[in-house]
Amino acid sequence: MSEKIHAKKGGFTLPAQAGLDEVVLDLAKRWGADAFRDSDGTVLSESITELGYDIYSTLCLIRADQEWNNEHPEDNQQKYLFSTPQTAREAVMEIDILERYSKEQYRIDEINDAATYWEVVNRTTGAIVPVSDWDYADGIVTVRNCEKWNVYSVNFLVYQIWETTSMYNHITNDWGDAPHQSGIDPRKAETREHIAKFLDKWLETHPNTDWVRFTSMAYQFPIITNPKRETLYQDWYGYLDCMSAQALDEFEEKKGYRLRPNDLIDDGYFNSTDRVPTRAYLDWIEFTHEFMVGWARDCVKQVHDAGKKAILFYCDHWIGTEPYKPAFQEIGYDGIIGPCINGREVRRVADVPGDLVKELRFYPYFFEVDLLNEPTFKEGGDPVRDCKKYWMWIRRAMLRKLVHRIGYGGYLDLAIKYPDFIKYLEYQTREYYAICEHTGFTPVQNAPFKVGILNAWGRDRSWGFDQSWPLGGITESLSGQPFDIEWISFDDIRGGVPEEFGVILNFGLAGTSWSGGENWTDPRVVSSIREFVDNGGGFLGLLDPTAHENGGAFYQLWDVLGVQKEYGLSNDTKKVLPTDISEGHFLAEDLASTDPKLGKHVQTIYPCIESTQIVAKDDEGSVTIATNDFGKGRGVYLAGFELGAEQNRLLQRAIWYAAGREEDMKKTWFSSNIETEIAGYPETGKYIVINSSNEPQTTTITDGQGNTKTVELDANASQWFDFAGNKI
Amino acid sequence: MSEKIHAKKGGFTLPAQAGLDEVVLDLAKRWGADAFRDSDGTVLSESITELGYDIYSTLCLIRADQEWNNEHPEDNQQKYLFSTPQTAREAVMEIDILERYSKEQYRIDEINDAATYWEVVNRTTGAIVPVSDWDYADGIVTVRNCEKWNVYSVNFLVYQIWETTSMYNHITNDWGDAPHQSGIDPRKAETREHIAKFLDKWLETHPNTDWVRFTSMAYQFPIITNPKRETLYQDWYGYLDCMSAQALDEFEEKKGYRLRPNDLIDDGYFNSTDRVPTRAYLDWIEFTHEFMVGWARDCVKQVHDAGKKAILFYCDHWIGTEPYKPAFQEIGYDGIIGPCINGREVRRVADVPGDLVKELRFYPYFFEVDLLNEPTFKEGGDPVRDCKKYWMWIRRAMLRKLVHRIGYGGYLDLAIKYPDFIKYLEYQTREYYAICEHTGFTPVQNAPFKVGILNAWGRDRSWGFDQSWPLGGITESLSGQPFDIEWISFDDIRGGVPEEFGVILNFGLAGTSWSGGENWTDPRVVSSIREFVDNGGGFLGLLDPTAHENGGAFYQLWDVLGVQKEYGLSNDTKKVLPTDISEGHFLAEDLASTDPKLGKHVQTIYPCIESTQIVAKDDEGSVTIATNDFGKGRGVYLAGFELGAEQNRLLQRAIWYAAGREEDMKKTWFSSNIETEIAGYPETGKYIVINSSNEPQTTTITDGQGNTKTVELDANASQWFDFAGNKI
Repeated sequence: MSEKIHAKKGGFTLPAQAGLDEVVLDLAKRWGADAFRDSDGTVLSESITELGYDIYSTLCLIRADQEWNNEHPEDNQQKYLFSTPQTAREAVMEIDILERYSKEQYRIDEINDAATYWEVVNRTTGAIVPVSDWDYADGIVTVRNCEKWNVYSVNFLVYQIWETTSMYNHITNDWGDAPHQSGIDPRKAETREHIAKFLDKWLETHPNTDWVRFTSMAYQFPIITNPKRETLYQDWYGYLDCMSAQALDEFEEKKGYRLRPNDLIDDGYFNSTDRVPTRAYLDWIEFTHEFMVGWARDCVKQVHDAGKKAILFYCDHWIGTEPYKPAFQEIGYDGIIGPCINGREVRRVADVPGDLVKELRFYPYFFEVDLLNEPTFKEGGDPVRDCKKYWMWIRRAMLRKLVHRIGYGGYLDLAIKYPDFIKYLEYQTREYYAICEHTGFTPVQNAPFKVGILNAWGRDRSWGFDQSWPLGGITESLSGQPFDIEWISFDDIRGGVPEEFGVILNFGLAGTSWSGGENWTDPRVVSSIREFVDNGGGFLGLLDPTAHENGGAFYQLWDVLGVQKEYGLSNDTKKVLPTDISEGHFLAEDLASTDPKLGKHVQTIYPCIESTQIVAKDDEGSVTIATNDFGKGRGVYLAGFELGAEQNRLLQRAIWYAAGREEDMKKTWFSSNIETEIAGYPETGKYIVINSSNEPQTTTITDGQGNTKTVELDANASQWFDFAGNKI
Repeated sequence: MSEKIHAKKGGFTLPAQAGLDEVVLDLAKRWGADAFRDSDGTVLSESITELGYDIYSTLCLIRADQEWNNEHPEDNQQKYLFSTPQTAREAVMEIDILERYSKEQYRIDEINDAATYWEVVNRTTGAIVPVSDWDYADGIVTVRNCEKWNVYSVNFLVYQIWETTSMYNHITNDWGDAPHQSGIDPRKAETREHIAKFLDKWLETHPNTDWVRFTSMAYQFPIITNPKRETLYQDWYGYLDCMSAQALDEFEEKKGYRLRPNDLIDDGYFNSTDRVPTRAYLDWIEFTHEFMVGWARDCVKQVHDAGKKAILFYCDHWIGTEPYKPAFQEIGYDGIIGPCINGREVRRVADVPGDLVKELRFYPYFFEVDLLNEPTFKEGGDPVRDCKKYWMWIRRAMLRKLVHRIGYGGYLDLAIKYPDFIKYLEYQTREYYAICEHTGFTPVQNAPFKVGILNAWGRDRSWGFDQSWPLGGITESLSGQPFDIEWISFDDIRGGVPEEFGVILNFGLAGTSWSGGENWTDPRVVSSIREFVDNGGGFLGLLDPTAHENGGAFYQLWDVLGVQKEYGLSNDTKKVLPTDISEGHFLAEDLASTDPKLGKHVQTIYPCIESTQIVAKDDEGSVTIATNDFGKGRGVYLAGFELGAEQNRLLQRAIWYAAGREEDMKKTWFSSNIETEIAGYPETGKYIVINSSNEPQTTTITDGQGNTKTVELDANASQWFDFAGNKI
């Protein structure tokens, strides 16, 4: 292995580009880079790779050898799609199954037997149409003996002929006539063997590469496109693109039952991560994961055998690697890289278990437009504005969980047209290196209890929820809060809430995986939480917590939360408990009004027991913030959330209060001004105060010993201190 | 029978009062009264009853003989209540079952066997606790072997010791030490026999009575009160107060199965009319109705045998009589009287089938406060303002379906303190008599197709839905629209939509009886509607029409409506169809903006097929009005509704448009100014133009022959014309 590799020290990966050697060297100094990388569409010249810096080389094995892919159409990647649901007007109906999808992206699978692998579903009744009642030819499924006025849809297999990342990069950068790359499926024996040989050869022919940057392994998260190249469906966690006829057969062999196409199509919901996962879908994830662990382990071994390191890009084709599942550690990656625009995305990478180099690839990506198609490095764009905004979100999360490296990607020749951006990155990297240096990657001092985020996915989808992108809400706020946070599933608590937790959070809309849906009808779940709170624990619900109609209640833990939701079934039941605001409530101390902005909040919430304390309500009288004592513990309810200093503090207060430790909040590591935050590192004896606002701020901070001090900070600035209070 | 009875001519019933003979006579002249009535709390002196006017005497048989009631506590009326749901903290739990209820109103049933008639329910699991695990004593149910942290509730029988109307009148009028009257159950043989004797005697002793005004028969709609005398539950249609241990046993005998207490308690929802009714509840209604038809028929026969007429007050204890069920006609009432504050309440009475005298008792009732406890005939009240407001709503509905009589109730001595009110009633009665005279009770000319309002109740709950009281919404607007309207149930259309309908409406929140809930998963239901629309029919959905998650769709008739609702499960599915407003849409012609006020409307509505035309959307881009062509017919969607001239016209347009007859709207009987309306009566050759606004209005009307004419109307005024266009 190359001696020059110096990870885990606070490094920076610079996207270099052939022909820009001098610029690259200059920027490397300004930004403190210790590694160069290529990107999709750029190459590094030999002159660059020999400069003595770590060299990252991106490698996407499944599209690396297009010749092979073209010669093996039967091994191209597959997926299930469903035809536009179509209402039967006659007994015989023709369905143009690919009509709603991009024909650039997909080709109907005419290789595998349709009768075996497809199904025609009567969506009105849920019945599967007998195979004898339909045929496929030339893109059309003809269904006979239709029930008139029922809705039918075909679940069918396609080959993906234009690989998703290739398609995105191609379209975004206007690559014109450049070929459309396809992706190949390593589950196929011959292809797998070919990839292994290809990789060995690649490793041989890349002597200057230190890190093989897998971007990523085999299966892309789904981005399904329509004929107008508009995205029809996108789920960063979706297990759709790992399908094949062979995989289906192997699944049956391994799991003992056969998946129906609709187990993947999910009535058209595609098992979105917002859906409470079915047993079949969880099995499918596990089945894919098992395969990927095996195959990725082999690839990593080849890399290691070649004296190089392997690092996973935790995006694009990451499906199946599942960094939060235990078997991920068996793969043997040396590191993991995540794209990162906000604090939630910091934590999604930083919280991954294992002894890995963790790196973040920041936004803006050096493309002309961003993921929302807004201009960045072209006219109308303002990359400094974007970068500064993202850094304010990222920095506070990094103070809670730090990563070893940061970097950027894309076309350097675009970025260097923006000198202000070059300059801002000098500031950003300096601030990042200071965090690395002063924390020494040692733990921050958080509240003395754990906070669990409870949903149907648990640890596997840690930091996976947010209401919007790039600006997040609840999870974005939590990413920089002074709490140790773990994402837990209902399975984790059915036998009781583990002792280390002080507060359990549950948030999301009713019926979603995040709120939990039917899980709330499991007596073990509600009993565990009630017992936990009764013993002094805290339960904080946001939006529609514990929501599922059962036994005359919609919010199942109404007795803990103190509130209930009226959604039309009980308007005849009068809501007689008063909704007077509890004066001087701890949660309200930093709120400017009794109707704070909580985004698109849940409505028609009313107190349902006498002990409920109302902290805030909206202009129609619907409760937006409430608390309730339950035994020795407390329930807290928030009807919504939006990102902001006032709301951050509210959430912080809500958690301390739920834990019954509100008196401890200000005792140590507290900053009075809600635009500012503080983080202390006992092992290095240093602390930092940050101002995430665009205005100068003055704050009174309390350090780890309870000493107070006034700190003044410029807009967006930070200041380090030693434990004696001296500026560093 | 008295010769003086002159119903069906446009009469007025005056609430007289002993001691006010001269006033009564004077008012009778001013208001054109032809009948006097007493009220709960007032009596008519002999001098009044002998004045030659029709005499209405209120009679509430179940509380008429308190002595009997007191001597027969076991025959007092009963109901099921549930104890406050209580979370088990130990294996043994004591439940104070009456804790949440008024002890003035209820006494726990200690006569019938608790083990037989009660049940303790684990609301968390839905399980019934074995009788061996609980006991009752002294108001407390002790439950043993509780599952800790599960929620329990007891469904138990009580006697209602303070009859609901007596309680309301007593409290509202501060009757102090006056005795609390109870109600007796005519289902008990001995009591029934006693009542029959009592009635005969009463008839004998009321020689001047022409009309026995039953107020009403046996069973009150439920108003459940808490210890603070606050209403906990109220459902004008609820079948709760017709319960008894005997009824339960008889039900089993008659229907072949036994009701569980929870069949009535309904997990605490009490089978609110907003709930999709269960089979058990419908059976219970039918069972009660069968009994009531039999008993009421006997009572009416006694009345008729005494040479008097019987009229039903369609309120208070009306439960079981069910005017819209066919067997109601067997009872033999001569008339029906409904309380009436708005157009919806006009139609609820006016649309009742059968050859009955139909009468409306208007608001304000002559009490010091109204049903919302706001002052009316006391300081702070303004009875003229109230009356005028109600009359504007009532008048337009009467032009569609007229009733034979109107009147008031309560204490005349309160009303006469308000000379302006006395005067306003002169105006109101004059306007009412004009309607009677010029229409001659002949049909108004409506659109040449029927409109069906589809829900889980159908005809039995005609005009039963509204969002609020007294100011209504959708149904209030419909009550005065130029359409023949029928309320229909899913059973009415499972075999196909009957031919006479041009448009089917479905409105209500998801999961309610009004929207229909699970009925929408019946393939017969969706197929019927699709076939109907495909053949040229119209389907108009408001709020959450056709809503029930099934087969990947929430609004089941998305293909007809053209829109779908996003409620959290498919955010990963991108909504790619544009929401551009369709310029110049027929529905929008009288709208002031593309975001009209539609009350608390349903949100996150998006177009789901290409043919959808967007008429309006809210400030977040959610579609609020859309239309869609489906075969030869059309779907129309409105996300909400609130009462107003603009919205009335919108609804009118929506129906004409859905019917595919928008070109006919203005051809006849059309008034251009949205604050005004027109109604024509071909059989009498007259028409009326009304101004329901508080400002003078000018409008261009089109008569039945298509002739146009400018009409000017003072604020709130009306003007009659003959078909030649001459003012009358």
